[in-house]
Amino acid sequence: MEQGIRKKQVGDRVEQYALIRSSVRGIASNNKPFLTVMLSDKSGEIEAKLWGVTPEDEVQYQARTLVYVQGEVVDFKGRLQLKVRSIRPSNEHDHVQVADFVKSAPLTQEELLANIHAYIFAIENSKLQRITRHLVKKHQEAFLTSPAATKNHHEFLSGLAYHVNCMLDLGDALVKLYPHVNADLLYAGIILHDLGKVRELSGPIDTAYTLEGKLIGHISLMATEIDKAAEELGIEGEEPLMLQHLILSHHGKGEWGSPKAPQVKEAELLHYIDNVDARMEMLKEALGPVSPGQFSERVQAMEFRQFYKPSFIPEDNEDDS
Amino acid sequence: MEQGIRKKQVGDRVEQYALIRSSVRGIASNNKPFLTVMLSDKSGEIEAKLWGVTPEDEVQYQARTLVYVQGEVVDFKGRLQLKVRSIRPSNEHDHVQVADFVKSAPLTQEELLANIHAYIFAIENSKLQRITRHLVKKHQEAFLTSPAATKNHHEFLSGLAYHVNCMLDLGDALVKLYPHVNADLLYAGIILHDLGKVRELSGPIDTAYTLEGKLIGHISLMATEIDKAAEELGIEGEEPLMLQHLILSHHGKGEWGSPKAPQVKEAELLHYIDNVDARMEMLKEALGPVSPGQFSERVQAMEFRQFYKPSFIPEDNEDDS
Amino acid sequence: MEQGIRKKQVGDRVEQYALIRSSVRGIASNNKPFLTVMLSDKSGEIEAKLWGVTPEDEVQYQARTLVYVQGEVVDFKGRLQLKVRSIRPSNEHDHVQVADFVKSAPLTQEELLANIHAYIFAIENSKLQRITRHLVKKHQEAFLTSPAATKNHHEFLSGLAYHVNCMLDLGDALVKLYPHVNADLLYAGIILHDLGKVRELSGPIDTAYTLEGKLIGHISLMATEIDKAAEELGIEGEEPLMLQHLILSHHGKGEWGSPKAPQVKEAELLHYIDNVDARMEMLKEALGPVSPGQFSERVQAMEFRQFYKPSFIPEDNEDDS
Amino acid sequence: MEQGIRKKQVGDRVEQYALIRSSVRGIASNNKPFLTVMLSDKSGEIEAKLWGVTPEDEVQYQARTLVYVQGEVVDFKGRLQLKVRSIRPSNEHDHVQVADFVKSAPLTQEELLANIHAYIFAIENSKLQRITRHLVKKHQEAFLTSPAATKNHHEFLSGLAYHVNCMLDLGDALVKLYPHVNADLLYAGIILHDLGKVRELSGPIDTAYTLEGKLIGHISLMATEIDKAAEELGIEGEEPLMLQHLILSHHGKGEWGSPKAPQVKEAELLHYIDNVDARMEMLKEALGPVSPGQFSERVQAMEFRQFYKPSFIPEDNEDDS
Amino acid sequence: MEQGIRKKQVGDRVEQYALIRSSVRGIASNNKPFLTVMLSDKSGEIEAKLWGVTPEDEVQYQARTLVYVQGEVVDFKGRLQLKVRSIRPSNEHDHVQVADFVKSAPLTQEELLANIHAYIFAIENSKLQRITRHLVKKHQEAFLTSPAATKNHHEFLSGLAYHVNCMLDLGDALVKLYPHVNADLLYAGIILHDLGKVRELSGPIDTAYTLEGKLIGHISLMATEIDKAAEELGIEGEEPLMLQHLILSHHGKGEWGSPKAPQVKEAELLHYIDNVDARMEMLKEALGPVSPGQFSERVQAMEFRQFYKPSFIPEDNEDDS
Amino acid sequence: MEQGIRKKQVGDRVEQYALIRSSVRGIASNNKPFLTVMLSDKSGEIEAKLWGVTPEDEVQYQARTLVYVQGEVVDFKGRLQLKVRSIRPSNEHDHVQVADFVKSAPLTQEELLANIHAYIFAIENSKLQRITRHLVKKHQEAFLTSPAATKNHHEFLSGLAYHVNCMLDLGDALVKLYPHVNADLLYAGIILHDLGKVRELSGPIDTAYTLEGKLIGHISLMATEIDKAAEELGIEGEEPLMLQHLILSHHGKGEWGSPKAPQVKEAELLHYIDNVDARMEMLKEALGPVSPGQFSERVQAMEFRQFYKPSFIPEDNEDDS
Repeated sequence: MEQGIRKKQVGDRVEQYALIRSSVRGIASNNKPFLTVMLSDKSGEIEAKLWGVTPEDEVQYQARTLVYVQGEVVDFKGRLQLKVRSIRPSNEHDHVQVADFVKSAPLTQEELLANIHAYIFAIENSKLQRITRHLVKKHQEAFLTSPAATKNHHEFLSGLAYHVNCMLDLGDALVKLYPHVNADLLYAGIILHDLGKVRELSGPIDTAYTLEGKLIGHISLMATEIDKAAEELGIEGEEPLMLQHLILSHHGKGEWGSPKAPQVKEAELLHYIDNVDARMEMLKEALGPVSPGQFSERVQAMEFRQFYKPSFIPEDNEDDS
Repeated sequence: MEQGIRKKQVGDRVEQYALIRSSVRGIASNNKPFLTVMLSDKSGEIEAKLWGVTPEDEVQYQARTLVYVQGEVVDFKGRLQLKVRSIRPSNEHDHVQVADFVKSAPLTQEELLANIHAYIFAIENSKLQRITRHLVKKHQEAFLTSPAATKNHHEFLSGLAYHVNCMLDLGDALVKLYPHVNADLLYAGIILHDLGKVRELSGPIDTAYTLEGKLIGHISLMATEIDKAAEELGIEGEEPLMLQHLILSHHGKGEWGSPKAPQVKEAELLHYIDNVDARMEMLKEALGPVSPGQFSERVQAMEFRQFYKPSFIPEDNEDDS
Repeated sequence: MEQGIRKKQVGDRVEQYALIRSSVRGIASNNKPFLTVMLSDKSGEIEAKLWGVTPEDEVQYQARTLVYVQGEVVDFKGRLQLKVRSIRPSNEHDHVQVADFVKSAPLTQEELLANIHAYIFAIENSKLQRITRHLVKKHQEAFLTSPAATKNHHEFLSGLAYHVNCMLDLGDALVKLYPHVNADLLYAGIILHDLGKVRELSGPIDTAYTLEGKLIGHISLMATEIDKAAEELGIEGEEPLMLQHLILSHHGKGEWGSPKAPQVKEAELLHYIDNVDARMEMLKEALGPVSPGQFSERVQAMEFRQFYKPSFIPEDNEDDS
Repeated sequence: MEQGIRKKQVGDRVEQYALIRSSVRGIASNNKPFLTVMLSDKSGEIEAKLWGVTPEDEVQYQARTLVYVQGEVVDFKGRLQLKVRSIRPSNEHDHVQVADFVKSAPLTQEELLANIHAYIFAIENSKLQRITRHLVKKHQEAFLTSPAATKNHHEFLSGLAYHVNCMLDLGDALVKLYPHVNADLLYAGIILHDLGKVRELSGPIDTAYTLEGKLIGHISLMATEIDKAAEELGIEGEEPLMLQHLILSHHGKGEWGSPKAPQVKEAELLHYIDNVDARMEMLKEALGPVSPGQFSERVQAMEFRQFYKPSFIPEDNEDDS
Repeated sequence: MEQGIRKKQVGDRVEQYALIRSSVRGIASNNKPFLTVMLSDKSGEIEAKLWGVTPEDEVQYQARTLVYVQGEVVDFKGRLQLKVRSIRPSNEHDHVQVADFVKSAPLTQEELLANIHAYIFAIENSKLQRITRHLVKKHQEAFLTSPAATKNHHEFLSGLAYHVNCMLDLGDALVKLYPHVNADLLYAGIILHDLGKVRELSGPIDTAYTLEGKLIGHISLMATEIDKAAEELGIEGEEPLMLQHLILSHHGKGEWGSPKAPQVKEAELLHYIDNVDARMEMLKEALGPVSPGQFSERVQAMEFRQFYKPSFIPEDNEDDS
Repeated sequence: MEQGIRKKQVGDRVEQYALIRSSVRGIASNNKPFLTVMLSDKSGEIEAKLWGVTPEDEVQYQARTLVYVQGEVVDFKGRLQLKVRSIRPSNEHDHVQVADFVKSAPLTQEELLANIHAYIFAIENSKLQRITRHLVKKHQEAFLTSPAATKNHHEFLSGLAYHVNCMLDLGDALVKLYPHVNADLLYAGIILHDLGKVRELSGPIDTAYTLEGKLIGHISLMATEIDKAAEELGIEGEEPLMLQHLILSHHGKGEWGSPKAPQVKEAELLHYIDNVDARMEMLKEALGPVSPGQFSERVQAMEFRQFYKPSFIPEDNEDDS
């Protein structure tokens, strides 16, 4: 796929296959039904309206359908929208499949697993290592496909494992710079910190919060799992307690969802590593489609700030990694 | 014991037995060591200074010692202090024991247990009943002696069970007024809401936070215990999840220590019942020694407000219950 | 009336009488005028659009008109809307009247008045009783019909008196549990706490804020009325002052509209009783149309939270009271 | 009195008459009683300790006593203190009187009354004028002697009337600059805005909050008085309502004690005039004793900021007015 | 121009020349392009929709075009909108020019410059005077035409200079009332406080933030300019430092954009003068079109409050100045 | 020096040389003057009282004096204090010098300068490199000796340069992990971000805020210096603007002293790098003297939290680096 839907500007023509991520019915002022569909490919997504739809259309253009669409990008109240000229469902002769239109991490699941395993093996404290290994193994399949969130950052296939992967590399760099930090505790905390999201979120595509995700949350879910893992493995001592504390405190404070503020050095550092990696990812996303000398759209999870790409920074600099 | 140490006013003489709750050594400006002791009986406590102490004195007047003391109440920077004229450790001929000097709940442990059991048996949903019964039984001894907090409210022997007992009666009244409330879930939530404090706090006298109390907290500790109890009892379905949610959300919001805000009706009501009972107890404490037409001392946990006792309210009205 | 407008789901047909609560004229993109009307019956209300209206229609379909309407419920941007197929004003042969379409308290005005009078007579302090009786009598008619608010909670005919009625029962239960509370002061405070709303709001249907409601507010209006009532009745002493304090402080703190925080025990309790009853009513409203295992809509006055109805709670449990 | 107690620096000798404003008994570590007295003259006040006092001393050196004192100014934990060498009560031969040692407004009560009357007569709207005149007359004596606060600003004899006097002059200047402001409403609002303090505070010397001051507050007290004045004078229409709104809203918002935010232009302006005059007075006080090129002490009511007196501003510039 | 576009009410007919301030293209639900134009004259502006436009129309009705328009004022979702019946670009025979349709300060640029110069000459401290004169001269042209903001207050031609002009008159009045204030520093601070806006904003019409406006801001830009001006003029001593402090602190605190809170008396006063003048201007704007006895629209920059015009205030009172 | 003053526990004897960092005179209750001195060596500092001092003592024991002291460590209100048995000023035969008692960075000034220079040379953008080089050279001497703060973190000799040195290494690691970050801008921002502290603070020992430090602050001072450096070097374009933005925004938001929030990716990252390094240094300091299984003292700049050292972390792990 050449350029991708999200790279288009106002006035650009669109002729490509795309995945319908969501489809909502409405009634127009002329009394006729219409669909608001979100069309996506790996580059991102764009909204479109299908006016005057028939009941068959409503069935045909549901979420998770692949379509071939032609049209033009327009500006609708400051946001891009696709003005559809023609649209049809894809068929077998088109040789397209959903997986090609879903954004996913830049590393394969095998690569992610290998990297994370390497860090698990680097944990010298056997209690911490065993608990971590046990829980990663227990949730391995979901861990490798889950997004890290429903929106904001790493909200793509394998986003969770990729986020953990990057945080581990950052943690490794920090341990070298601050040798008084305990690498074992930090690595174990990084690997497990968001693992509860495999229960908080419904899965890799169009993810939503589960009931236990809403009422308990990934933080408390994982703290309980650590306690139970330690019991199952017959592990005693302060290690499981510290690991639970790292999980419980990694959002930093009560307003942000942590029932306890960090009270252990590695817990404090984990909170910062999580933030830095999430923000770097959000900025990469937001500034990716921006030309030098321009501002990005507002980034919701960063206090709705807009970010500027200085005109002296060469374009391709953004495309690395 | 006639009047009690906490009822004394500036200028009153003191001649009584008392329990040393804490004892801290200092060095005075004349270079001599002294002890700051907190003397208590069932009415409350008062600070005193023992000047120019010998090494023997330091041993003799440690925390948890019973003493006979004579002196006079004075004002020290706006707080009452006991000016000690003479002090000696009690001996066997004095026939006094520690239990007589420790404040405790107005109901006996047997009465408290009977009341709480009655509510457990009133829970019709068998899953909720079994989990509740299991956990109360598991922690029964500590539950019946633990204070509800290190300070602020119900910080006395059996304070936790007494707080739960009063909350249950209040919950019962509310269920009658608002029949759309589910009594089973509410009772189970009330009984378990603070049970984690038997692990968060060190015990009934001079209680302090334990390590897991500081780093995990009673809220998360009990959520995990419920999850494990359900597993042990082979209980599935939404009941253990709802119960965990009630525990996790009972502080109302993140800033107050809850990782989730209430999202179930009974969780919202539990939060209010907890608040009302704690505040009524604090106000009873604060206004107890106050004469009609006067203000109380500032109540720390109620935004440092002072409370006024209207002069038209008869004195003995405060002494009920 | 069988099911009621508010119980309808997307796709349901509507054929019934309804009351137009509000009617606002707009101009559509085809340049023709249309009306946005809010149709209601006792179950609640739903929005509808009347497209391409004539000048006669605009006159005919004003607020407070009863109509017969046919159509279908659709989803418009996540909210329910009635797609109108036909509509006509009701006539004498329809035998319908406005009172049948207005939501009102579950108790009659006579019942409410009798209950409130019983509590007034239970006030033993004659000064408090006389002031309370005087003010209830003065505003009796408006008190018995006024809603308790323009939206959020008890926003229906007799909502104010019903809210007071429930709070009194709750107060009664609390006085029994906490006998150190002064029942006289509490009952008087409950009865008068929101009575200023008969001046703050414009009346029982489609209520709006009056000028003195906006610039002075029900809290200050009632504090002044108490002062004047005491003067008229020749009452001196602390009673009128305490009663004014209870009214002034019942929103709890400055940010919530109270010029003074509670500084009397009964004032603190009044604030909590007001909150508990309002929140129980809002939750009953929000969860009423919700099926077990589902979440309610967001509740604006409860920090926009959604509430879950556990799937193990039997349906009819919500319909009591 | 030459220089005044508040102008003294560390190391300066003191030999002068002074007024004891407060006297508190303590017990020193050598077991002997001592007095902490606050000595004052018109320039301000300084703390002193009278060590080893006899019972006669305790009687002799109570608040409101005039004394002759000799000693030296020392630094005690960053604050100035008077190290007393000798002290004795004044006697008739000393020819000193309390009034000479109490700080008061720079204008006499007659001057203040005349100025305020001039503004009352400038109010053209007869309803506003009559209400204002009525209330000023009713409280005239207390109005002319009351301080404006217990601390922070204008906390001296006639401070309230002086504050109003300055605000009126400032209001006059603003009305000339912004002719769309209604002078009548603004003047009436300024004159009455803090008049409730004659009931909130206990009187001109060592003022404290009264019971109705604490539980109702000057804002609500005056709103009620306006309502009653209008009734007594048979005044109807919006004028009394607007005047009440100006009083109720003059602290600007809920957190600062106003039950309503300003919703009338003159109410908004009144809030600003009140602030500007209070802050100018506090800064004059704080910077008065400061040399050019130095910082003042921290000003509590101005977020504990310290203020700098630029070294290029000539000294006598501060002494005007 | 008789009445002006902003004075029109719902139902009023419009037949006049107007300036298009902005023009945004959209696509209607019938798939045809339309323009949303903002039409303005000196009285203010009103929105209008041009439906079904041709490509020529899109070119013809761009921002900064003068048009002749006929239509009717309607209500659209609570805001006024012009329903266009006919529209055409103006031509030479119409004898209209842009300047006649742009709102500008009530004083001419010459008058504003003369007044400001008078204050500069009144600055006796030669260092302060020279820096002020230097910077006003440097930016004179932009200073005299720039608005004071993009919206909220003084957002018109010469708005900045007019705001400064009014603040100087207010400062003059305050210096007379509080002679301990240093007039030199205050005048210099007022004149320069917002001068950085000539670099922060893009110019007098349809102003927007510049890149250095967004990333540095007028406060820091002007602080740097003062430092550089002092260096260029060879001025040493505290004067440039104080002037920089006044600029840096004039928003009052960090949350409002000032890196330092005021720590000099004149800085504190400058902050208040800025606020009072901005708020008086906003209230004049908001209440101008309001009839006595009515509320204004919500004022965004004043916490979205609505303001009431008392019915006893004569109409023409608003039109002064 | 064996163990160091800060490693001592209650009851330990002290016999060593020490530097008096500050000395404040007081008057004891026995009327005699005493000195409160802060004694320090490289390990930290401890308070001591010198009772009953003569005028000669006051001269002899001033700040920056080296003394030989004997005594014992005691507990005074929960903090350690040195109970002095004997003290004398050091003399030439003692062969001690101030530099041996001042804490300083673990790298020499030469090492710090070399490292920082290496990063400057790594900046490929010549404009950024020249501005950075120019300013480092201009302030080189002060840069290499200045502390990074008056307290909290890096408050030692060369603390500023050491903080920059560590941040550069951290920045280097991050650039490798996030290649879309512009290393040039980040390095330049790190090197200059706190350079304004050489003007904000008074110097390396017992540092205090300067006048321009208090009224302008290091953030605005450095923004101005960058602007002037660019002008001097004839540099145009966006580089100086971006660099100023990084400096202005590096505290993250208004409440924390930044007039602008980060709006450039490297600015956001700079803010985080600054935080991480400061917090790691504070935690190293706080946990250094703590035994495994114990909590640290409260860390003021980290919301007064206490930090726990897990008992399974080997002791010497803290002593690295």
